[in-house]
Amino acid sequence: MATTASPQVEVTLKDIETARERIRGSVYESPCTRSEKLSRATGLEVYLKLENLQMTGSFKEHGALNKIATLTPEQARRGVIAASAGNHAQGVAYHATKRGIAATIVMPLATPLVKVTATRNFGANVVLHGANYDEAYAEAMRLREEHGFTFVHPFDDPAVIAGQGVIGLEMLDQVPNLGAVIVPIGGGGMVGGIATAVKERNPKIQVVGVQTARLASMKAAVDAGHHVTLDPATTIADGIAVRRAGDVTMPIAQRYVDRIVTVDEDEIASAILVLLEGEKTLAEGAGATALAAVMQGKTGLAPGTKTAVLVSGGNIDVTLLSRIIERGLVKDGRLIRLRIHLLDKPGALSELTELIAFHRINIVDTLYNRAYYDVNLGDTAIDITMEARGPEHVAELLAALTERGFRHSRVQ
Amino acid sequence: MATTASPQVEVTLKDIETARERIRGSVYESPCTRSEKLSRATGLEVYLKLENLQMTGSFKEHGALNKIATLTPEQARRGVIAASAGNHAQGVAYHATKRGIAATIVMPLATPLVKVTATRNFGANVVLHGANYDEAYAEAMRLREEHGFTFVHPFDDPAVIAGQGVIGLEMLDQVPNLGAVIVPIGGGGMVGGIATAVKERNPKIQVVGVQTARLASMKAAVDAGHHVTLDPATTIADGIAVRRAGDVTMPIAQRYVDRIVTVDEDEIASAILVLLEGEKTLAEGAGATALAAVMQGKTGLAPGTKTAVLVSGGNIDVTLLSRIIERGLVKDGRLIRLRIHLLDKPGALSELTELIAFHRINIVDTLYNRAYYDVNLGDTAIDITMEARGPEHVAELLAALTERGFRHSRVQ
Repeated sequence: MATTASPQVEVTLKDIETARERIRGSVYESPCTRSEKLSRATGLEVYLKLENLQMTGSFKEHGALNKIATLTPEQARRGVIAASAGNHAQGVAYHATKRGIAATIVMPLATPLVKVTATRNFGANVVLHGANYDEAYAEAMRLREEHGFTFVHPFDDPAVIAGQGVIGLEMLDQVPNLGAVIVPIGGGGMVGGIATAVKERNPKIQVVGVQTARLASMKAAVDAGHHVTLDPATTIADGIAVRRAGDVTMPIAQRYVDRIVTVDEDEIASAILVLLEGEKTLAEGAGATALAAVMQGKTGLAPGTKTAVLVSGGNIDVTLLSRIIERGLVKDGRLIRLRIHLLDKPGALSELTELIAFHRINIVDTLYNRAYYDVNLGDTAIDITMEARGPEHVAELLAALTERGFRHSRVQ
Repeated sequence: MATTASPQVEVTLKDIETARERIRGSVYESPCTRSEKLSRATGLEVYLKLENLQMTGSFKEHGALNKIATLTPEQARRGVIAASAGNHAQGVAYHATKRGIAATIVMPLATPLVKVTATRNFGANVVLHGANYDEAYAEAMRLREEHGFTFVHPFDDPAVIAGQGVIGLEMLDQVPNLGAVIVPIGGGGMVGGIATAVKERNPKIQVVGVQTARLASMKAAVDAGHHVTLDPATTIADGIAVRRAGDVTMPIAQRYVDRIVTVDEDEIASAILVLLEGEKTLAEGAGATALAAVMQGKTGLAPGTKTAVLVSGGNIDVTLLSRIIERGLVKDGRLIRLRIHLLDKPGALSELTELIAFHRINIVDTLYNRAYYDVNLGDTAIDITMEARGPEHVAELLAALTERGFRHSRVQ
């Protein structure tokens, strides 16, 4: 990558600078502030670009608005259409409606109601159609033909890419002597715009792309030197779950992106928790991938590099968040579930709970099992979920249980 | 309140302006940005002042640093001491250490390990002592005598109050034509500083204080016209759980605060969720009280008022957050638990789960009860926890269950 014999690309720095003037005042210039905690933890100078703070919760507004703002009066009169179950849908709905342009969004049938409602509340006409994104996309194409709508692609359109590039110009202004940017990659629209902006202004700035290991389609394409379509896969980074890199975006990535690295599900979940607990900011899975790569030391950057890390969006389902928190607590030794065997007689449970209370451990949940699993007849096993202070605290309890003769094992 | 026959107060606008210069560059000037969603939802022009984004996660740094920065060389050499289990501890620890001043923090024995560790990591010597704050405070007083430390009070000190007042000056700069500020009240240090700054600059700006209904000690004192000590109480707004208003702060509140209103636990929890889901920012209980008052229409402000709402801190235990999310989901009809009666024969559960799946409802957890509660012999009851899209979706399932003859009831 970043070779001299590069393919021609369709977006220029000038396009991005023009986009910046075009959308100025209509899209929030999100903060890009230094994190002392993350800088200490990673050895880089970490700056977080918080695109999760946009009105619709993600960076997608830049590209959507830049496309919408370049429509001819006739195109604007006819309206726009997009296919998306997520952030792009909201970005298009919000900015089209604000400009008095009709927006139709085709969403797959199984789209969570909360996303359908949000998109409708931003003023779009939502059409629920198809079992997956590809079927929704086909329906959007059919409706475009039928009604003469303009299609707003989520990433593979020069106007959309130029719009996302505005984020790159902002970071250059916000972080003097910027040394590197870390950007999540789905279809490649955001990284395409940002990499063009940054590299054309200063080729020495490193651009590192991050994909979910479950769907690293741009990395596969760049490594192979040609387009690759991956099998469908699920990931908590659903915002960047794209099976095939864009035709417009892939050559840009080949030319301007220095490295593409991948992160796994646990690494993403851990980055979501760090952003929440340490930085008090809510990121969705895709939005936390760039920080995940930094936290895992995967960026290949020299210590002390001034690094802008893109937090691209914050539209995470809070039910999923709740599960991520629980899993994180288990990993940290702050939540533990034990199966403890008791003599099935009065006082046995009381003795156990007294022991747990003595060690200042909080019981969250219990489940009594009589005559199940490998419990001896006359015995009982109880599954107890508890909050502890950390691994040492848990070890202290386990030792006390053993000493008092309670047979116990961890429940996963 | 805000009468002309006011008591003398010990903090002036000049003190606050001096504090601002003194701490400039060492405490983050947090953003105060307009929220379109909250403005639409409440009818006010809502600006959020995000003090949860401070390095130590709360506004407390302003006051702590202003006090520390006014020590004589001799006092600095001897070091400082504070009693706190929370945000004040971290603010003192961080800024004293940064200036090379030894900090001792006395925390009650039951302080969560995560807070002890955070305070130690900021460089303080932590002494665990006493069953509650009052006992920790007494120990801090004893250590002060013994070692000649300077005590940094969490709120009842003119230097601390002047430091918190800097937040008021920032808001005046950040929001042109500011009409009102909404500020959480614990001991009264923050509201004292902010109200002085704002009212001395422009007496027309409304100052509304917010307390948890469980411990409205400043409101009780101001209403009674004299100090009141309330019984201890627990609240999710633990950061403002103060039983008696300060001697220095109470006259300031009497003079400059227009109204004090209260919010209950559910209102606070709901505001935490709104900040998280809508604004992508994490607030602790105390930090969400001001927004809770705005959301409940308790501020008494005219529609359209430009209102700065203080989000004072974000140091919430994620275990508690996880519970708040779950409770919020139950309230919104997005999480539901039903007890459903089955014939105790093969196939009964399969028929039920098929029905639930048909309605696209996700089963999260099940608990089988055989021969308990009011279950007929030969029957079984199963408690099923499910994720739905909202109240209409739940109603649809309930109707289908009734139609198919499944006896069911809600489990709280």
